[in-house]
Amino acid sequence: MKYCFGVDIGGTTVKMGLFTTEGDLLDKWEIKTRTENGGEAILPDIARSLQEKMEEKKIKELQMSGIGVGVPAPVGSDGIVKNTANLGWGYKEVKKELEELTGQRVKVGNDANVAALGEMWLGAGKGQKNMVMVTLGTGVGGGVIINGKPVVGAHGAGGEIGHICVNEKETISCGCGKKGCLEQYASATGIVRLAKERLAKDEAPSFLREGEVSAKAVFDALKEGDVVAEEIVKEFGQYLGHAMANVAVIVDPSVIVIGGGVSKAGEILLKYVEKAFKEREFFANAGTKFVLATLGNDAGICGAAKLIL
Amino acid sequence: MKYCFGVDIGGTTVKMGLFTTEGDLLDKWEIKTRTENGGEAILPDIARSLQEKMEEKKIKELQMSGIGVGVPAPVGSDGIVKNTANLGWGYKEVKKELEELTGQRVKVGNDANVAALGEMWLGAGKGQKNMVMVTLGTGVGGGVIINGKPVVGAHGAGGEIGHICVNEKETISCGCGKKGCLEQYASATGIVRLAKERLAKDEAPSFLREGEVSAKAVFDALKEGDVVAEEIVKEFGQYLGHAMANVAVIVDPSVIVIGGGVSKAGEILLKYVEKAFKEREFFANAGTKFVLATLGNDAGICGAAKLIL
Repeated sequence: MKYCFGVDIGGTTVKMGLFTTEGDLLDKWEIKTRTENGGEAILPDIARSLQEKMEEKKIKELQMSGIGVGVPAPVGSDGIVKNTANLGWGYKEVKKELEELTGQRVKVGNDANVAALGEMWLGAGKGQKNMVMVTLGTGVGGGVIINGKPVVGAHGAGGEIGHICVNEKETISCGCGKKGCLEQYASATGIVRLAKERLAKDEAPSFLREGEVSAKAVFDALKEGDVVAEEIVKEFGQYLGHAMANVAVIVDPSVIVIGGGVSKAGEILLKYVEKAFKEREFFANAGTKFVLATLGNDAGICGAAKLIL
Repeated sequence: MKYCFGVDIGGTTVKMGLFTTEGDLLDKWEIKTRTENGGEAILPDIARSLQEKMEEKKIKELQMSGIGVGVPAPVGSDGIVKNTANLGWGYKEVKKELEELTGQRVKVGNDANVAALGEMWLGAGKGQKNMVMVTLGTGVGGGVIINGKPVVGAHGAGGEIGHICVNEKETISCGCGKKGCLEQYASATGIVRLAKERLAKDEAPSFLREGEVSAKAVFDALKEGDVVAEEIVKEFGQYLGHAMANVAVIVDPSVIVIGGGVSKAGEILLKYVEKAFKEREFFANAGTKFVLATLGNDAGICGAAKLIL
């Protein structure tokens, strides 16, 4: 029996999983991400935690295939990160440093690409080789898998689907500095914005006028038959579905997996996205399926482990 | 010394090239594409012509690495074509049939993907592993190379960049049936359309009011300092440059190669496309370069040969 570790580094916690090389998740746990002092403790903390797990499980170094790591930043196939938004790291040779700390083989990928790989290996994209994953959370993350491998790109920026421009007329800037990015409409924050704009337009009655507006509240209201909520979800669906039609003519996936907090709304979300996709679908992409992610928060550790195999 | 053939099947002629496996083009020639009777003669004609070339050059079968073929249709990695617009073929097992006719190993790819591969191997993208090629001809073709391999996709529709929707407001249909495809603005035909619409808008003086309007005439007028022509090229550049910014966030190429008849306008074309690209560039794509294709009509035979290597 051979083993590997999957490590998913986030701004608040580092999630870790111990896998067999066949894809069985044997154990998972997490530690705090200590971002202070330029995040200098993050990799030593991880190395120590993995070492402790090996001792606890009585796993020898020879039984290990290596460690896969997902990081919330663009990262090249050399495993070097140039900058991070929320880990404290600037330039960081993640692969090299963690290999030195652990004595094991390490591979590093962008967290969204790695999550996509996880869904392909053990989740909603199982058995597929050409897959796109969109993660709808605070922002919109993306991962593109072609022939079973994540698209890293020349600058480690492959699969940045959240930054496709979907609205040429936008006047407000996205976090990235551009205007009209998909993330501004299809993230949890984006849906709230669409909702607030719709509610301000007129006095139409809606459950959404009571309490705080959230992406969840919008989908809950939709399920109750709220007409205004349906207009909001329709608009969200158009932005996302039309963007996916453009992604499909470029990389031609067999399946598009929707994950992240917003996707907890369930199948009803897919209905609106798929309808908009069909409006713009290129004939040769017919047959492209939309499915919900199934691994939830485990997608990162699963995909990270798959990186090393 | 080992050899291979590159075959580029078009609606009018089949172009063929004899290469060494190191990438030297030793000979090239073409035959007519006989599309009558469902195109039944096309593959036997090719097999006969390649056989004659081997006899002429005294090349034995053992010295051959195989035959690469580009076809003007979506094609899966199984070498099966489902339909063609202008060869007469419906369902056709191109790889299998040509292997039976020649006794050699055959690989088949889409012509635009194959042209991109050619530019990567021997042309403007030499030394690159992540490249996008856009071919501006009667239509707009595209090829995406990731990690040195063309993106075929789940339905053989990868790299269909001409069918990215770039104008949600379009009312006229593209040849593919969708509305607002890049091809409707950035092809030779598309540029003529942009020019006619601009000229009809007012009476502004322009060289383009004399003689027939063509893509070439527009760029020639631009080079003479024609203000109206510049407006037209600016609009063309925006459609293409903005579309490429969206392609870049998905596949993150190091270089974007512009080829096809329209690209004969030269460096001045790149200037307008690159300017529009920069307006929409995602920060992590900074450094993406635009270059003109260098292989011209040979890109197809070069890329086809590379398929087999």
